[in-house]
Amino acid sequence: MSLEKRARTLALQTLASDQVKAPNPNFAEEVARSFAQQSMMSLIGAQLSLVEPGVVEINLPYRQDLTQQNGYLHAGVVTTIADTACGYAGYTLMPVGASVLSVEFKVNLLRPAEGETFVARAEVIKAGKTLTVVRADVFAITDDARKLIATMQGTMMCLTK
Amino acid sequence: MSLEKRARTLALQTLASDQVKAPNPNFAEEVARSFAQQSMMSLIGAQLSLVEPGVVEINLPYRQDLTQQNGYLHAGVVTTIADTACGYAGYTLMPVGASVLSVEFKVNLLRPAEGETFVARAEVIKAGKTLTVVRADVFAITDDARKLIATMQGTMMCLTK
Amino acid sequence: MSLEKRARTLALQTLASDQVKAPNPNFAEEVARSFAQQSMMSLIGAQLSLVEPGVVEINLPYRQDLTQQNGYLHAGVVTTIADTACGYAGYTLMPVGASVLSVEFKVNLLRPAEGETFVARAEVIKAGKTLTVVRADVFAITDDARKLIATMQGTMMCLTK
Amino acid sequence: MSLEKRARTLALQTLASDQVKAPNPNFAEEVARSFAQQSMMSLIGAQLSLVEPGVVEINLPYRQDLTQQNGYLHAGVVTTIADTACGYAGYTLMPVGASVLSVEFKVNLLRPAEGETFVARAEVIKAGKTLTVVRADVFAITDDARKLIATMQGTMMCLTK
Repeated sequence: MSLEKRARTLALQTLASDQVKAPNPNFAEEVARSFAQQSMMSLIGAQLSLVEPGVVEINLPYRQDLTQQNGYLHAGVVTTIADTACGYAGYTLMPVGASVLSVEFKVNLLRPAEGETFVARAEVIKAGKTLTVVRADVFAITDDARKLIATMQGTMMCLTK
Repeated sequence: MSLEKRARTLALQTLASDQVKAPNPNFAEEVARSFAQQSMMSLIGAQLSLVEPGVVEINLPYRQDLTQQNGYLHAGVVTTIADTACGYAGYTLMPVGASVLSVEFKVNLLRPAEGETFVARAEVIKAGKTLTVVRADVFAITDDARKLIATMQGTMMCLTK
Repeated sequence: MSLEKRARTLALQTLASDQVKAPNPNFAEEVARSFAQQSMMSLIGAQLSLVEPGVVEINLPYRQDLTQQNGYLHAGVVTTIADTACGYAGYTLMPVGASVLSVEFKVNLLRPAEGETFVARAEVIKAGKTLTVVRADVFAITDDARKLIATMQGTMMCLTK
Repeated sequence: MSLEKRARTLALQTLASDQVKAPNPNFAEEVARSFAQQSMMSLIGAQLSLVEPGVVEINLPYRQDLTQQNGYLHAGVVTTIADTACGYAGYTLMPVGASVLSVEFKVNLLRPAEGETFVARAEVIKAGKTLTVVRADVFAITDDARKLIATMQGTMMCLTK
């Protein structure tokens, strides 16, 4: 197995995420409602494609107006969908009435962001009462091939009233 | 002096940056030309406002369609202007014919991104032959007040043909 | 499956790493020789426990003189073994005659570093000609229980003469 | 002014830090007491050399047993003193009875860590009720010359009983 395939397999494998318990029974609706309020998501054409306890995926079709000087998806757009996926992955495990905030994140850009569609997949590594650590991988998809183009490690904060 | 004022003073002070030598005499034109090719900058309404050897600033007026669920500027947009400023700050010190690439960056989000305008100011910390380390501060401006809302530390790569 | 167990399973699963090809047939000896020259490893009592193409593990027994103010392993020590594991994981995939250098890394500290032994496991995410991106998880082991206490994402550089 | 000198000047300038108010009047004693309990500091020979509100410096003389394979100070040791300086810089601005915890940090290694002595200087960027963001620069000193060898950006957490 190549290194690329291995990383891909690791990241995409079934995580049995339905066995992680979400404290808020309406977590999926809450994520969808909040996502719909992020006008930035609609500006860039990003869509929520998976919401499970501790895992969120966001899809983004390539568009020419989202690019940097070489025609690749701008690193800022790659980061935008990764950060949003991380925030909501963390949010799925927060209690009723909480809100979520990005504290910090770090992104490594691994390959040129070229593809027809991009998917950011975020998974919670550690859910804490105040801080939740999340990782996201961003893949570029062309035909049936997926390439890992970026990876994020970040911290999300749970705010309760 | 308050902590906030001190950080602000530190970040905004005159850096005597014209005394840092740019190996490419046309660095400012090159940055402007490349920036104009980043369609993402035009989508979000970002403008290049300062280009000096080792220092670049980008301005972004607030727009409702750039926000997250609470109406603040999306962390991804904050990151987008910071990353672009870092890339071009690094680029100002690269040789003729080089191109620049973001390798990785880390962002700490310090305060809610609310303001009328946002400024990302990037400064090169260490310019190397292959790798250049850059820091950027992002400020929110309302009337005459500036608040530091985010800070980035990142690595840019110089590609030569 | 709990979130903790899931993360653990993910991190510890067999990676079929022997199927990733190391360009240097003597990679394991080279890693061992270089590790033996790191006097810091011997000062803290760290040992190389696994060397495969793209994967390296380092073990460290708890010692009272490696702690911070609360008696937990110092975050700097946690980082030291994670960084060393990352560097050598990257090194296993570098060509004959190369040397390796840490460019940058980011660590999230997830739980108090308490345990009888600590293991840092690093895996290459993307091996490039110049830059290699590596991730490391650090586990605390007490009796038979393993806890993920920290995770690192970093960049290593390949230097050739 | 060279880039290196500029960065140095920036980092070393007087910060008028005595004008930042520490909520705990005994902050300096508390830092010294806690530092003395970090057995790792004594193992590597690190000393607290400056404690002001929001600013802490730690000195470390070079020792052969703190090195990596090329005889330079190990990146983990560089990180250890930077992290400790960051933690205590944050601690100086925390209320009476609080304790401090490293949440995460990111380090860029800028130059080989060679020198007679090393100084990590940490400065608080933003002190929050729960989270404090701190930056540290690490310098290598040889005779009278100082070189910036690493820079850290991290998050510290305030724990109250």
